[in-house]
Amino acid sequence: MRPIPCCCRCARALERPCQLYMLQTRTGKRTAHAALQIAVDMANEGLISKSQALMRLKPELIDQLLHPTLDPKAKKQVIAKGLPASPGAAAGKVVFSADEAVRRAKDGEKVLLVRIETSPDDIHGLHAAEGVLTTRGGMTSHAAVVARGMGRPCVAGAGAVQVDYAAARLSVGSVTVQEGQILTIDGVTGEVILGEVPTVPPQLSGAFGIIMAWADEYRTLQVRANAETPNDARQAKEFGAQGIGLVRTEHMFFDGGRIIAMRRMILAADEADRKVALEELLTMQREDITELFRIMDGRPVTVRLLDPPLHEFIPHTEAEMAQVAKAAGVPLNRVRRRAAELQEANPMLGHRGCRLAITYPEICEMQARAIFEAAAAVGKAGGAVPVAEVMVPLVATLQELSILKEVVEKTAAAVQKEQGMNFTYRVGTMIELPRACLQAGKLAEQAEFFSFGTNDLTQTTYGLSRDDAGAFLPEYKAKGIVEQDPFVSLDQEGVGELIKVAVERGRTARDGMKMGICGEHGGDPASIEFCNKVGLDYVSCSPFRVPVARLAAAQAALKLRGEKALQPSTKAAKPLQPAFGPW
Amino acid sequence: MRPIPCCCRCARALERPCQLYMLQTRTGKRTAHAALQIAVDMANEGLISKSQALMRLKPELIDQLLHPTLDPKAKKQVIAKGLPASPGAAAGKVVFSADEAVRRAKDGEKVLLVRIETSPDDIHGLHAAEGVLTTRGGMTSHAAVVARGMGRPCVAGAGAVQVDYAAARLSVGSVTVQEGQILTIDGVTGEVILGEVPTVPPQLSGAFGIIMAWADEYRTLQVRANAETPNDARQAKEFGAQGIGLVRTEHMFFDGGRIIAMRRMILAADEADRKVALEELLTMQREDITELFRIMDGRPVTVRLLDPPLHEFIPHTEAEMAQVAKAAGVPLNRVRRRAAELQEANPMLGHRGCRLAITYPEICEMQARAIFEAAAAVGKAGGAVPVAEVMVPLVATLQELSILKEVVEKTAAAVQKEQGMNFTYRVGTMIELPRACLQAGKLAEQAEFFSFGTNDLTQTTYGLSRDDAGAFLPEYKAKGIVEQDPFVSLDQEGVGELIKVAVERGRTARDGMKMGICGEHGGDPASIEFCNKVGLDYVSCSPFRVPVARLAAAQAALKLRGEKALQPSTKAAKPLQPAFGPW
Repeated sequence: MRPIPCCCRCARALERPCQLYMLQTRTGKRTAHAALQIAVDMANEGLISKSQALMRLKPELIDQLLHPTLDPKAKKQVIAKGLPASPGAAAGKVVFSADEAVRRAKDGEKVLLVRIETSPDDIHGLHAAEGVLTTRGGMTSHAAVVARGMGRPCVAGAGAVQVDYAAARLSVGSVTVQEGQILTIDGVTGEVILGEVPTVPPQLSGAFGIIMAWADEYRTLQVRANAETPNDARQAKEFGAQGIGLVRTEHMFFDGGRIIAMRRMILAADEADRKVALEELLTMQREDITELFRIMDGRPVTVRLLDPPLHEFIPHTEAEMAQVAKAAGVPLNRVRRRAAELQEANPMLGHRGCRLAITYPEICEMQARAIFEAAAAVGKAGGAVPVAEVMVPLVATLQELSILKEVVEKTAAAVQKEQGMNFTYRVGTMIELPRACLQAGKLAEQAEFFSFGTNDLTQTTYGLSRDDAGAFLPEYKAKGIVEQDPFVSLDQEGVGELIKVAVERGRTARDGMKMGICGEHGGDPASIEFCNKVGLDYVSCSPFRVPVARLAAAQAALKLRGEKALQPSTKAAKPLQPAFGPW
Repeated sequence: MRPIPCCCRCARALERPCQLYMLQTRTGKRTAHAALQIAVDMANEGLISKSQALMRLKPELIDQLLHPTLDPKAKKQVIAKGLPASPGAAAGKVVFSADEAVRRAKDGEKVLLVRIETSPDDIHGLHAAEGVLTTRGGMTSHAAVVARGMGRPCVAGAGAVQVDYAAARLSVGSVTVQEGQILTIDGVTGEVILGEVPTVPPQLSGAFGIIMAWADEYRTLQVRANAETPNDARQAKEFGAQGIGLVRTEHMFFDGGRIIAMRRMILAADEADRKVALEELLTMQREDITELFRIMDGRPVTVRLLDPPLHEFIPHTEAEMAQVAKAAGVPLNRVRRRAAELQEANPMLGHRGCRLAITYPEICEMQARAIFEAAAAVGKAGGAVPVAEVMVPLVATLQELSILKEVVEKTAAAVQKEQGMNFTYRVGTMIELPRACLQAGKLAEQAEFFSFGTNDLTQTTYGLSRDDAGAFLPEYKAKGIVEQDPFVSLDQEGVGELIKVAVERGRTARDGMKMGICGEHGGDPASIEFCNKVGLDYVSCSPFRVPVARLAAAQAALKLRGEKALQPSTKAAKPLQPAFGPW
């Protein structure tokens, strides 16, 4: 009988193996960094396969790597808890307005923006702040979505926090925090902490790069990003995005001088007036899109036409309206009247999306022109000309799409003639209404691609406003009525069935039609698995979710092929080798 | 050769028939009354069959018979046009608030209520007025729905009319109308007319009763009414309703003292406080439902649990909030805070329907108790005990329904024990969300009936707020994007497909499950034909639409059976002989 070593590390040989008793076990806690390193090491040592290494990693680990985290050794006094709306930890002096955030940030202070909820008017404050805390709103509230896109930590819907704007303070029970005092938020746990807690900066190790490269070998889903600023686009590309799946053009109109032009357009007395304002917007939009095309360097970019209702651009208090009237050079009464006219009972279901473009085709024309002139500009400067994808939002009927496609096509022809240059473009539609899913077969007659807007599709399928769901969704989760916030993880039974129907009908009408998803779900691993299963071509998500999505897409592909298929797919997405940063 | 008479009225006999030359033809214009009489006469003379007589009549003719119409000989100066939201003509002194309407009506004046839009707060004004004119809102806006239910003429969404509440006047272009001046509206054409135009009162001839009786022989769909006031219920029964398909319990809480109790419930500091307020509401609700059960005399009555978001019961101006605080005996600050808490970005998709009952099960319990105690009270008084149908609104998941069904069942058991009396009841659900349609198979495990709430189902399927659609729907119709306002006539391609799916899945899970429709579409002939085709058991509509629905249902049955089937159906709905008025 051959002697058996006692254990792998000792040299003592036994006649019979010693017995190993498990007296107690517990899950080994490892940092995200260690988890990746172990997986890579084990695969490199041949103990597991690459695909097994990929399957062992929770995609959420990746997200933690990309952001600063709280120092685990530090003490902390948690005063409230909200939703973990955007990962990372941030500490800063509390401010209650976007303007104050900008003012203090200019003076070199680190600030934390605290709002009951944010609106597009607060964008400059979100940019200036280290992080954002809101007391109302869910995982897809304005603050949450914007913060995730920017990679800013965010805790949303911390209902226990009472904000008093007038007194510039907040309170939680007996604790009061004045403007200028410091709070820390943890966007991974949703904790709101008194004072400053030290943070640990993100460290992207070599293991991260290796895991990403392996994921790219296995996944069949492409991963794009939702981005409209040059910073976001660069960040997305650095993280491995294969294109932009959603440019929300309206976000380009909120900064400083731009919102003035936008308001002038909205407040225009007639079409002629509106066209003058649109000329101004055209210049800005063209420049922005040109920059995005340049950054994305030939990768596809999907530009969505103006989507939100116009009243989002007009303030509603008297003082602000007076400012707007002055800035836009129109009588105050016109601002008041227009604000009243634009008011809606349910703006989410109101005059927005393609409905705006139907009523004001000149807006659609301006946007199409900006896109095509940008494509031409990039081409003339010797850059890789992207296939410009023009996306029509909130379509419910074929006629809407046909009318707007004609506007876009006419504009494309005009620009091609003016510029003496041909370029390829596609006109597609967002599928974000139940009716659009059902009518997908008809829509596919005109639409050259579909992009599922699962935020809105969830809202309408469920009859659930993402900004208002915070009032009862936590209770719904606690009572087991919903397993997951349907805005975080796709409701596969309900919304998912509509998506399946749309994919089937769309591809029956137009063979091999390109389809993707650009809702927030595009960055959620369970939803990504679903997208892979129903045969979508790509997911598009916030830039900081791109690495998560790459891993999740690989896992989805592996699961679909079954545990035995441990070889790289022949259908694998083209590996994205050198472009993506130092790892 | 036998002599041939020249024509049916002359005695001159000819050797050969004279030739009849058609020199010109035009459609003979007949009053609704004449059309019915001719159809009945022709059938009685054997020239056509009964079913042919029924098929010849446009159901809309019936509606015209039930309301006063403008004297066709009178001159009129039309100053604006809105949507024909509720039929009939009305003239009255213009008032701009519900309170003013009530004050003047008490003094014996005839008033016309003019509002930008109405809210549940205006109900007393709608009752007091001859008719209502709004400048915003569509065919299913609050004003339109309530006016149709009351049989009050209404012109809605007359956008050209500018209302200035502060100055108590309206203007259309250069025409200005002060409070107290007279306007006339025509709810059939949507016209707004300066001054008083004489009207002709409705005349219900014998032909009307005969046509209704014939319709009842052929139709297979039952016709119920949406009603919550004794007047509406009586009117509905008189018009031939076979039950109430929708009691909107919230409407019972808007009158005078009731809204105070309702507000006390909403403003309650805790559950104990809330229960005290609920006790008050219980008494009122029980009395109301008892009265409805009595009037309906054994016919089924479907009572829907509280549906609208709570903020609809709380005013939002400082002055009104102060009044509320005083009336409800709570601090003003609590009213302010609660109003702010309850504010929603998209109330239609917010904390309403069964979501309220999940959060506040004590409200559900109170309502179930009111229903069952009412059933017991009617039984003890020797009346026909109805099968009480408890309807849970806005269900999206099976769990919601299961939780609430349990609350209702427990309450039923408790009331049966307390009252020493057994009664039959059913718990069902409104199907008004796309997700509910898709999940119908699961919901049918718990739901004992389905009622399609097609107003909300249209809103969510189309992503279209019925209160905001007025801003672009007219243009959509003009451009041919939609053929019909989808809130008036059911969108059969989109919403209709979801209904079909739900019917199929529901009945697969629960054989022969009772299903109806209680949206506004229940009174629209084309939608009724659809309901008949997909196999619903009943339609439920505004009381004044019941006769229209009876005729439309007969036509639908005849069409479905094909033109050759000219004999009364063996499956015909039980004729409703003597109960329906003097005709």
